[in-house]
Amino acid sequence: MIKTRLTQLFDLTHPILSAPMALASGGALAAAVSKAGGLGFIGGAYGDTDWTIQAFEDAGGARVGCGFITWKLAENPDLLTRVLERAPAALFLSFGDPARFAVEIAAAGVPLICQVQTLRDAQHAANVGADVIIAQGAEAGGHGEKRATMTLVPEVADWLATHAPDVLLLAAGGIADGRGLAASLMLGADGVLVGSRLWASAESLAHPEMVKAAIAATGDDTIRSTVMDVARGLNWPERNTARVLKNAFTDRWHGDLDGLLGVAEVEAARWSAAWEAGDVAVANTFVGEVAGLIHGCEPAAEIIESMVTEAEALLRGAVSRLEE
Amino acid sequence: MIKTRLTQLFDLTHPILSAPMALASGGALAAAVSKAGGLGFIGGAYGDTDWTIQAFEDAGGARVGCGFITWKLAENPDLLTRVLERAPAALFLSFGDPARFAVEIAAAGVPLICQVQTLRDAQHAANVGADVIIAQGAEAGGHGEKRATMTLVPEVADWLATHAPDVLLLAAGGIADGRGLAASLMLGADGVLVGSRLWASAESLAHPEMVKAAIAATGDDTIRSTVMDVARGLNWPERNTARVLKNAFTDRWHGDLDGLLGVAEVEAARWSAAWEAGDVAVANTFVGEVAGLIHGCEPAAEIIESMVTEAEALLRGAVSRLEE
Repeated sequence: MIKTRLTQLFDLTHPILSAPMALASGGALAAAVSKAGGLGFIGGAYGDTDWTIQAFEDAGGARVGCGFITWKLAENPDLLTRVLERAPAALFLSFGDPARFAVEIAAAGVPLICQVQTLRDAQHAANVGADVIIAQGAEAGGHGEKRATMTLVPEVADWLATHAPDVLLLAAGGIADGRGLAASLMLGADGVLVGSRLWASAESLAHPEMVKAAIAATGDDTIRSTVMDVARGLNWPERNTARVLKNAFTDRWHGDLDGLLGVAEVEAARWSAAWEAGDVAVANTFVGEVAGLIHGCEPAAEIIESMVTEAEALLRGAVSRLEE
Repeated sequence: MIKTRLTQLFDLTHPILSAPMALASGGALAAAVSKAGGLGFIGGAYGDTDWTIQAFEDAGGARVGCGFITWKLAENPDLLTRVLERAPAALFLSFGDPARFAVEIAAAGVPLICQVQTLRDAQHAANVGADVIIAQGAEAGGHGEKRATMTLVPEVADWLATHAPDVLLLAAGGIADGRGLAASLMLGADGVLVGSRLWASAESLAHPEMVKAAIAATGDDTIRSTVMDVARGLNWPERNTARVLKNAFTDRWHGDLDGLLGVAEVEAARWSAAWEAGDVAVANTFVGEVAGLIHGCEPAAEIIESMVTEAEALLRGAVSRLEE
């Protein structure tokens, strides 16, 4: 077993959190991750109250956390209160200023996890009281920004060591197996957040056709774009693009936002219908560059077990790379 | 000492190559890296014959390699012959199809190192006879593409393991200290290519004002852009953007390429004069996201020693992260 400050803080067997992925991380996935020794998160992402409360029901009493898109939660802040009443293991905020919600979360005695995409936002998150900071690189699936896991993690680690040494640090983006977990620990992380790899799991709510497309793809086949959000009229901040599998939709509209805006209503309807149907030629599959490292859709427990076993072997064998 | 297939192939003390950075990696830096136990590379990048041959003179007989921008070498292919006559330790190609040059390099008995930015190009490089493949992530300074080191390295490693197990793999992009080196080994690399960190070294030809700007910057302060190349009329392939420090020039023109083209001659002259003068407000500093991990401009030997010492400690201590 890999022991870190993260396993100690949450009394976990493995230093692994599952990402609160919008529309994929329901109660079943969150519960499965927690039962496997990590900590699972419900993706309360778009702030729909009924969906989120139902996900807690679906978790069947397992100890899970809940995550939100911060700017979206601000449109329905009562949902935070509802979720805090459920005594989540942690509250996870990403994409927006967590300051507004930090006080209520602290008052509830719930640990605050802030996912950030820049050093500047890591500093801000620490300053407003985050207990755990997740440094998310641009290789991640779904929404994110531009910096890479490889540099963001050690740079945030250095800043925290000097300014907020009690705040934990996790790596996110590009981590799909034991190599990514072991590498993250070397970079200075206390553990990892796993998104795409657990999105492609038996318990995920992802459409099977999209999982199939991700399995068939390589990491070369993804793109960060805004066209899916522009078409749907989602008011994502300009800085937050989303990584998806390239397809005819991104081929047509990425680089022609003005053209898309002219036909947004039609294209949004077409895209959304395709999303429901799992038509990956029109709707985009939200997955990270690790698509090239995903070769199946196993139960979450198997994925975590495999990841940890591989990382343990790498850590155990690391000293053998040295010679006097 | 860290022993890998790379140290064995080139009989090195450390599994570290310096990047053949255009206009920064002269003979002094290449020689210093080789003398420190790595393998140094002259940046014959833009294919200027006199500059490159002089760099070999400046290396003072040290065993060094030489690197080229592949599409640029194609404009002056005789330079390859001239360099091969110098019996370089290895020939390094990046940014373009290496197939055309692979035969001549192999005939000279010189190992071929191909830097790639996608899985697809890694496959091609292996197929045309590369002895070493360098998987370069987008966090790297200077020219590159979009994929991240964190995912590109393990994905290429998996492909090579099945299809070309004798080809070595190095990680590049985002590696500036022992954490990056240790992480790269965990990801499946046989060693690392270090660019920006050695660009900020005593032996580098980088302008001192630019090095100073990089030291003052964080990783948040860089951008991948084409405006520097567009202004100067350099025919870089569209896919190869360059990571630089953001400044007034990129603020103005990134996102307004058409506007820039209208005044390219004036702006190119202004940019180039500023480049010579080290005026970082106008000319862009070519450095990667590791700018946030660079805090000084030490001799290359010190940088390498520090990197290796830190990595060794991480590898030696890795097993202590496990508990039964």
